[in-house]
Amino acid sequence: MKKSVFYHAGCPVCVSAEHDIISLIGQDNVEIVHLGDNKERIEEADKAGVKSVPALVTPNGNVLHINFGASMKEVKS
Amino acid sequence: MKKSVFYHAGCPVCVSAEHDIISLIGQDNVEIVHLGDNKERIEEADKAGVKSVPALVTPNGNVLHINFGASMKEVKS
Repeated sequence: MKKSVFYHAGCPVCVSAEHDIISLIGQDNVEIVHLGDNKERIEEADKAGVKSVPALVTPNGNVLHINFGASMKEVKS
Repeated sequence: MKKSVFYHAGCPVCVSAEHDIISLIGQDNVEIVHLGDNKERIEEADKAGVKSVPALVTPNGNVLHINFGASMKEVKS
């Protein structure tokens, strides 16, 4: 199965959601991407439809925005 | 393992998120609760910290608010 991708920006809300997601769907089923540390992947997240972080992009391309840590505008600045 | 509980209110955003959650964590690991059809469970969702639906309450009690379908105020009315 294609992996889900969890985009975050290191905020406390993100870290908490990351732990929950890993515990729910399993570490092996999700790639974790820190957009603050990997700014070159912001465009990819944008294209996937990520409006805020933390967000989980499912294997079929749906975007689940989880709680609210930061907008993509804040991530880019 | 204790099940997660997915609260929703039948809105299109909720239905889409429900399919994603079931596909990610497995039908057997999540109880689906439609708060419109089960208004007696609204208080339980409130106490769990659910502010809007759809929301997933994890086995350890964390609340993941997913996208945004409706506020709890709208669900109650």
